[in-house]
This record gives sequence, C-alpha cells and structure tokens, in this order.
Amino acid sequence: RAGLALAAAAAAAVLALALAAWRRRRPPVREVLFFPSRPSCTEALLAEAAGLGTTARPCPCPLPRGDSSLSRLLRHLLSARRSLEICLFAFSSPQLGRAVQLLHRRGVRVRVVTDAQYMGLPGSQIGLLRHAGIQVRHDQEDGYMHHKFAVVDRRMLITGSLNWTTQAIQNNRENVLVVEDAEYVKPFLDEFERIWEEYNPINYRFF
Amino acid sequence: RAGLALAAAAAAAVLALALAAWRRRRPPVREVLFFPSRPSCTEALLAEAAGLGTTARPCPCPLPRGDSSLSRLLRHLLSARRSLEICLFAFSSPQLGRAVQLLHRRGVRVRVVTDAQYMGLPGSQIGLLRHAGIQVRHDQEDGYMHHKFAVVDRRMLITGSLNWTTQAIQNNRENVLVVEDAEYVKPFLDEFERIWEEYNPINYRFF
Repeated sequence: RAGLALAAAAAAAVLALALAAWRRRRPPVREVLFFPSRPSCTEALLAEAAGLGTTARPCPCPLPRGDSSLSRLLRHLLSARRSLEICLFAFSSPQLGRAVQLLHRRGVRVRVVTDAQYMGLPGSQIGLLRHAGIQVRHDQEDGYMHHKFAVVDRRMLITGSLNWTTQAIQNNRENVLVVEDAEYVKPFLDEFERIWEEYNPINYRFF
Repeated sequence: RAGLALAAAAAAAVLALALAAWRRRRPPVREVLFFPSRPSCTEALLAEAAGLGTTARPCPCPLPRGDSSLSRLLRHLLSARRSLEICLFAFSSPQLGRAVQLLHRRGVRVRVVTDAQYMGLPGSQIGLLRHAGIQVRHDQEDGYMHHKFAVVDRRMLITGSLNWTTQAIQNNRENVLVVEDAEYVKPFLDEFERIWEEYNPINYRFF
C-alpha cells in the first residue's frame, strides 16, 4: 500500500512538473485588437464563464456569433484565476461589468481604480461593482485618471486607448494591446500599486 | 589605382555589414513612460534637433533640466529619419507640435490622422501643421478617432492613453509604451494605412 501511495505521489509530481514546463514553453500572448468591434453576441461566452455551460438556453438575439474584438477582450479578462487590477478612466460597458462581477464571485481578487469625475455619470458600472462588494478607489485630483489598463493574474497586461464603454467599443477607432512581456507588465503593476496606495480613502479630503 | 579603389570598396562593404550587424544586435526598445511628466525644460532638446546645437543660447526659463517623460517621448519622436505616422484624437502640445514640424523640415515624411470634432478647437496644433505643409486627414464619423499612437521609421511604435495635449502631459495619469517588437508595430502600421485610405479627401461628403 505504501508503494502504491509513493507511485501516486511520484506521478502527481511528474504531472505538476510537466504542467509547469508546458506553461513556461507557451509563447507569451502578443495580441493587438482594434475597435470598433464588429457586432457579436457575447451571451454564450459570459454564460459559460458563469458556470452555466451548455445548460443555458441559447441567446435569442439576432447578433452574429463568433469572434470579435470585444469577445477577444472578454476572453482574456475571463482567463483570470487569482487577481485582476483595473485602472480605467471610464467604465460603463454592461458586458465588461458582468465579466468583472463574475470573476469577483469566482474568488478572483478584483481591485478597481477610476476617475472621480466620470464614475458618477449615468451608465457608469462603478456603483454596481461597489454594490457587488468589489473594492474601488478613485482620484481627488484636478487632472484625469486617464489610464485604460488591466492586469490579469499579475501576468497579462491589457492596455490601449479604449475606455470600457459601449460608445467606444461600438463606434470609436480604438486599440488594445494584450501583452505578457514582463518588461511591459511590471511597470504597469508598479504604477497600479502606487496609485492604489495614493488613492487610499484615508487620504481623501472633505471640503 | 584600381587596387586602391578595390580596397576602398571592400572597406566600405565591411563597414556597411558591420553597421547592419550592429543594428540587428541592438536590443529592441521596450520602454514604458508614465505621466504626469515632471516639469522639465525641453528647449535644449528641440534646439539641438533643429540643428542650432550648442550655438543657441541656453534657455533662461526656471524649469529643471534633465530627463522627464515628455523629454523621453520627444527624443524617441526626434529619432525619426525617414517617416512618421501620427494617429491622434487630440494634438495641442506646442512642444510636440514643434518636434513634428522640425522633422517635416528635415525631410521626414510626416502623415497625420486626427479627429474632426477635436481638430478645430482652440489650441489645436492641426492648423499649424497644415500651414507648414504637413498632410493631415480626419474622420467624418459619429464615433471618435480615438487612437493615440505614432510610428517612427516604420520600426518604433509609440502608443498609450496619452493625447498630445499640455493638460494630459502635465496633469493627467497617463501611460505611453515605446515598442519595437514587430508583432505590435505591424498591426498599427496596417491600421494607419487602412485609416489613411479611408479618410482620403476624395471620400469626404459635403452636406
């Protein structure tokens, strides 16, 4: 019996090593997305990520199925397993808001930094995220908190000109880079932590 | 005499090969700049690029000398030798405007794409660039031409959240990536050429 347990442990160790090696070998993601995104239904993607899988009814909407810049962006976000840092001037897209809430419910540690002037506008997702229990911090500056980036699992940087709004996704010329090169990811993580500390509510002033 | 010419030609060939090898060996630029930029005087940088060199008088302004995110951005732009594609939602920074005009006068082929709603606002550099003889094209769409990128010598991509405005440079939280990886540069060049053709004045509509 001890021999069997030893063999099982050895097999598990080999498997873990093989998995780690495969992860290391996988080339870094290097993707460029352009917007406006072609219209596409993202319901199946979000239902699958919510664990409803194929039991959910197919969406009856007439939008085309298949990939689009929005669905690619959603897929990269939904790949988060441990952490998600978001630093966004404007966030009003319902699909991206649902994706972020979904990750939070799944146990991913989500932190959001945003711009004070924009967060209260009609359609902003920020209030909904806070209601869902997600930590949000904002600036108190004259200038804009104009970043538009996210970091998935401290490994993948998503950054560009795109605010996460339906207007931008559907109507604007925009770009998003999806990057796993550490030389780019690390400075953005550091910038997030700097801003996160600076925007700590203990620093807020009340006039 | 023929031997001498042959030797000179051989030396030149060796030199050209060595230069090409050195260029290939130079690691690609991978830089992340954050804003607001710390204040710094950029006069020396612009005077040097204008060929005035050290004969120009030192600037009497009280701004600190030395590097800043703005001076790094200017340096990368001013490294252009052949071509510069610019695709910007908003362009009102006088320093960046001077740099672009300087490159145009130096014989660099400059092309600018911008947003129609923003280009006519007070402080916009677009009119000045056109007066200087630089080609500018703009959208005629409801959505914004919201990109903020430039490509230097079809080799270096400069992209991020930063519009080229004094407000953004001095007051906003912004990021700029400077990138030479072909996987990122090529899609942006293709996007520029697509937009450049689409915004050809022969396609403008007059209502």
